Amino acid sequence: MHSEVIEAPLNHITITDPFLGEYQRLIRDVVIPYQWQALNDAIPEAEPSHALANYRIAAGMQQGEFYGMVFQDSDVTKWLEAVAWSLSQKGDPALEQTADDVIELLARAQCEDGYLNTWYSVKEPGLRWTNVAECHELYCAGHLFEAAVAFYQATGKRRLLEIACRFADHIDTVFGPNEGQLRGYPGHPEIELALMRLYEVTLEKRYKDLARFFLEERGKQPYYYDIEFEKRGGTWHWNDWGDAWMVKDKAYTHAHKPLNEQDQAVGHAVRSVYLMTGLAHIARMTQDEEKRQTCLRIWNNMVHKRMYITGGVGSQAVGEAFTSDYDLPSDTAYAESCASIGLMMFARRMLEMEGDAQYADVMERAFYNTVLGGMALDGKHFFYVNPLETQPKTIACNHVYDHIKPVRQRWFGCACCPPNIARTLVAIGHYLFTPRKDALFINIYAGSKARFEIEGKSLQLRIDGNYPWDEQVTITFDNATPVAHTLALRLPEWCENPTVQVNGERAQGGVIKGYLHLHRHWQQGDCISLTLPMKIMRVYANPRVRHTAGKVAIQRGPLVYCLEEADNGADLHNLYLPQEADFRLEQGNGVLKGKVLIQTEGARLATPSEGEALYHFNPRRTALQPQTLTFIPWFSWANRGEGEMRIWINEQA
Amino acid sequence: MHSEVIEAPLNHITITDPFLGEYQRLIRDVVIPYQWQALNDAIPEAEPSHALANYRIAAGMQQGEFYGMVFQDSDVTKWLEAVAWSLSQKGDPALEQTADDVIELLARAQCEDGYLNTWYSVKEPGLRWTNVAECHELYCAGHLFEAAVAFYQATGKRRLLEIACRFADHIDTVFGPNEGQLRGYPGHPEIELALMRLYEVTLEKRYKDLARFFLEERGKQPYYYDIEFEKRGGTWHWNDWGDAWMVKDKAYTHAHKPLNEQDQAVGHAVRSVYLMTGLAHIARMTQDEEKRQTCLRIWNNMVHKRMYITGGVGSQAVGEAFTSDYDLPSDTAYAESCASIGLMMFARRMLEMEGDAQYADVMERAFYNTVLGGMALDGKHFFYVNPLETQPKTIACNHVYDHIKPVRQRWFGCACCPPNIARTLVAIGHYLFTPRKDALFINIYAGSKARFEIEGKSLQLRIDGNYPWDEQVTITFDNATPVAHTLALRLPEWCENPTVQVNGERAQGGVIKGYLHLHRHWQQGDCISLTLPMKIMRVYANPRVRHTAGKVAIQRGPLVYCLEEADNGADLHNLYLPQEADFRLEQGNGVLKGKVLIQTEGARLATPSEGEALYHFNPRRTALQPQTLTFIPWFSWANRGEGEMRIWINEQA
Repeated sequence: MHSEVIEAPLNHITITDPFLGEYQRLIRDVVIPYQWQALNDAIPEAEPSHALANYRIAAGMQQGEFYGMVFQDSDVTKWLEAVAWSLSQKGDPALEQTADDVIELLARAQCEDGYLNTWYSVKEPGLRWTNVAECHELYCAGHLFEAAVAFYQATGKRRLLEIACRFADHIDTVFGPNEGQLRGYPGHPEIELALMRLYEVTLEKRYKDLARFFLEERGKQPYYYDIEFEKRGGTWHWNDWGDAWMVKDKAYTHAHKPLNEQDQAVGHAVRSVYLMTGLAHIARMTQDEEKRQTCLRIWNNMVHKRMYITGGVGSQAVGEAFTSDYDLPSDTAYAESCASIGLMMFARRMLEMEGDAQYADVMERAFYNTVLGGMALDGKHFFYVNPLETQPKTIACNHVYDHIKPVRQRWFGCACCPPNIARTLVAIGHYLFTPRKDALFINIYAGSKARFEIEGKSLQLRIDGNYPWDEQVTITFDNATPVAHTLALRLPEWCENPTVQVNGERAQGGVIKGYLHLHRHWQQGDCISLTLPMKIMRVYANPRVRHTAGKVAIQRGPLVYCLEEADNGADLHNLYLPQEADFRLEQGNGVLKGKVLIQTEGARLATPSEGEALYHFNPRRTALQPQTLTFIPWFSWANRGEGEMRIWINEQA
Repeated sequence: MHSEVIEAPLNHITITDPFLGEYQRLIRDVVIPYQWQALNDAIPEAEPSHALANYRIAAGMQQGEFYGMVFQDSDVTKWLEAVAWSLSQKGDPALEQTADDVIELLARAQCEDGYLNTWYSVKEPGLRWTNVAECHELYCAGHLFEAAVAFYQATGKRRLLEIACRFADHIDTVFGPNEGQLRGYPGHPEIELALMRLYEVTLEKRYKDLARFFLEERGKQPYYYDIEFEKRGGTWHWNDWGDAWMVKDKAYTHAHKPLNEQDQAVGHAVRSVYLMTGLAHIARMTQDEEKRQTCLRIWNNMVHKRMYITGGVGSQAVGEAFTSDYDLPSDTAYAESCASIGLMMFARRMLEMEGDAQYADVMERAFYNTVLGGMALDGKHFFYVNPLETQPKTIACNHVYDHIKPVRQRWFGCACCPPNIARTLVAIGHYLFTPRKDALFINIYAGSKARFEIEGKSLQLRIDGNYPWDEQVTITFDNATPVAHTLALRLPEWCENPTVQVNGERAQGGVIKGYLHLHRHWQQGDCISLTLPMKIMRVYANPRVRHTAGKVAIQRGPLVYCLEEADNGADLHNLYLPQEADFRLEQGNGVLKGKVLIQTEGARLATPSEGEALYHFNPRRTALQPQTLTFIPWFSWANRGEGEMRIWINEQA
């Protein structure tokens, strides 16, 4: 069951999909250059970033003081990671040179002993590793490692990897179970998953062991966060919700008990999914059944009881956190873009371990809904928070909506989600395919070209179609030499009657955990043809979810749809979808060109005239009037200005 | 239209109603003694109050420091007011002596010049009147004035009234339009309505003029709050929501523009209704049409666009404040008990001015739902916040519900709502009758005996029945000498077909603004018999309210009903009330003895077994199963332990 995954360098997967290709173009042409300007403080209307200046000061190349958050360094390494994956998709010598220069800057900022963190080097020298609960040193290290692996895999260049390894080696001397070492672990997980990535490309066993140390030490009593808190004299860093709350609230950081005793998705949602990504990775690579069981428990709780239909997780703004089972409010949702990216990462690792389509189903749901929805169609505006329902005039006045924005915001207001969306979109090839020893799993049928090495032979294939809009997908093979291998084709949960043909014949194979496994000597000219009927599905939530009682949502393929005021008028809460409605597809116009819209005949409870009573006793006033309903893919909402939006709508019996 | 109201000393109205009588007994036997213990710091498990100690220190009778909030003094005067109204209902020499002793203490604590506030006298001498925006000096003065008027009207004793007048006289020298006077006005309104009460019993014109000054000065530019903020060097008192927010957020205190330019109910809900109570009072007494129009505008916005079905106001916890039109969330509601008390006060003054039953309808709604619901049936537990829907397991985990308690809390956790509920329940006679020159208005048909002086003659009457449970009400007259007067009988909005007989004959009279006006020479033996059919009403909210879309509430008489988990099981959101359901009345048992419950045959969407999917595509799974629904009066919820509660339920077409 713990089949080995073959790590494919990303430059062997190229996105050719027009839909995702446009997103990659936006990352390349708009997001990466804009972020570069921001890192250089060259955007007049933006808050200064100072992130590159911090490195220059640490490197002794510039005078000045540290400026920014305790995790400011990670803005640079996330940018480097996005650049790396982007270069893997399309070469750009000038951009690569810029990145090389940044990498040299990092090298110069790195301390003799391998330490690399500008907050501590510049602002608080001598206080290194005194507050791992709150101060993101290990988190920043993790993003450096991820960038290093990406840059190596995309370009073959080892310079950043060497910087990362020097720092990892240093951390490995500081943390550990031995006399004189700190038995700490990060407040914000990230280094665990990054160490596993570093292990995959370097095969340095110490990195895997250090990841395991962090994961196994977490939550042991006495709590390390309390120990270091006492040691530094009871000081703390974050003040938002009261004194030393981040030290005290152990569940917020998933350090309230050892991971093998945890069984619920709690606390800060992003930290949870990052943590579980690392845990699932090591569980597979070390065939550790106890860790695997923890992953399964947390996954099941998270996905089967605490996930929005959009693949969003984290139901509340306070603590950007999970709440309780089946508590999924549409309007006060947090559902941070980064949390869905982390959910994709967690799903990817579970999929590698389990070869089960349920993980791909969730990965796809998170990607095509919340993650894509996190960025505007112009590539210039972003959502942190992704509500499933919003009414702008109310969010302006009721403070329970303070975290909700009616439209996406310009980049500079926020430094976390936009670069995360950027690196995910350019690395999306990672998620389409899962190359395991037992089979090459094809998870998401986005247009792409890929080459995999199978026992020394090269398997080359191309996916064509217009996913996720059209039902037809073809997979054609380009390798002249036949390769004997199993292809595992995902049969999506949303598809009732998929059909698969190989070279015009009905495919012969077994369905295992939601994948059709086809074994064959694949060679040039072979063609798999999939038909994935995209019936318009009415989705119902489990009746334990009280926010969706009596309501229905619309989904086609992996895309969740919504109503917007622009098409349907205001007061969307008064619209009804009849139980027996017939749907028709429409082509989007203007900014929605290329998107498939859905129309049907529904009904509206008319908004009464201005003076009408607030309460009345007359049931006849609730009579419904016919109205055409127009649904758009939810990821594309708020691209036509401010207005109401709603996913879950009233069902008319 | 500005008919003069005859101020009836309260001791001429006695509650005989078994239902309200039980509440008055609880106030007398439980609440007032408990609060007395609290004020004396004699409750071991409670936070110290220190309120009486503060007065003793100010009086030079005790050494020590001030302890408590900036409005701690008002805990004592609110207690005195409750005692006064309670004495008007039932004599208690020992209690009256205790109150007299407290009044002597206040006399000794009062400064030479009449000033009386222990925070400033003890803690910040020399800083008097430097921060009226935030520091509640004028608010505390108002509660002293109200207590003084009540004590005088209940007992005829003038001692507290003299203390009040000395303080009012002092304030009148400090504040005003003249050279050397402060052009300030209170951050928390209360003194305006209290000065009008003081004017009513003393006929001292300066008190009315001072009230007018405060009301007319409010919101003028440059803002007084900014002027005093600058003068005291930019310091501030309250920190909860950021630096000097209470100074800066003028709309929070309704000081963002002059009252005659305001047209929406905004900001802190309690402050709003207190302010409007004073404004309506002066508008009537000075026949000021501009002020009347302001009252009408704010009333209409508040009641027709921003009021819960329960008579609750203030939709959000942040700022305990109004939000926007039709924003009435059931689960995150604030709807503070004190705000509904203030709404009753505002309604009472509007009713006095307008003689219009719409004000009595709202007054009754607020009283029999939110105000009664604010206190447990044991008299020992209280709600500050009154949600219309709650699920305990969720409010424990999702911080948008931090202000919501699943059951009422012991008194000592909170010092504001419990004494306010206490004084309202013992003064309820004020609200049942509105004695105007043109007619004696009977607003609420609770059992009572009352005597009114009409042009030198005594009109005595008795109301019998079992309001609000039974449809039959009789009003019998006891005065031997006939009195020629108009009786105005309210025909409640919830009653479709009221019938009224006088001495067995169908009553002859005209309906004016919702009151049946009957003119007659009333004398002993005359009997009015009202039948107010209490059909069970299905209530619908205006479709602009998005939280109640597709939902219905149940009301009988003035009582709003709800479902509780104790009777109906958990997951109340899955219960449906058929559009054509027949209702039956049931008698409550146990703690609900004497309450009328309502049952009907409804339906439930079954809660699936534990492992079922979070989302599914199968409409057949939403089939409903029959279930009996049991509704209880909402004011009586949470008297049987913790559980779910819901007013607005799904309607089944």
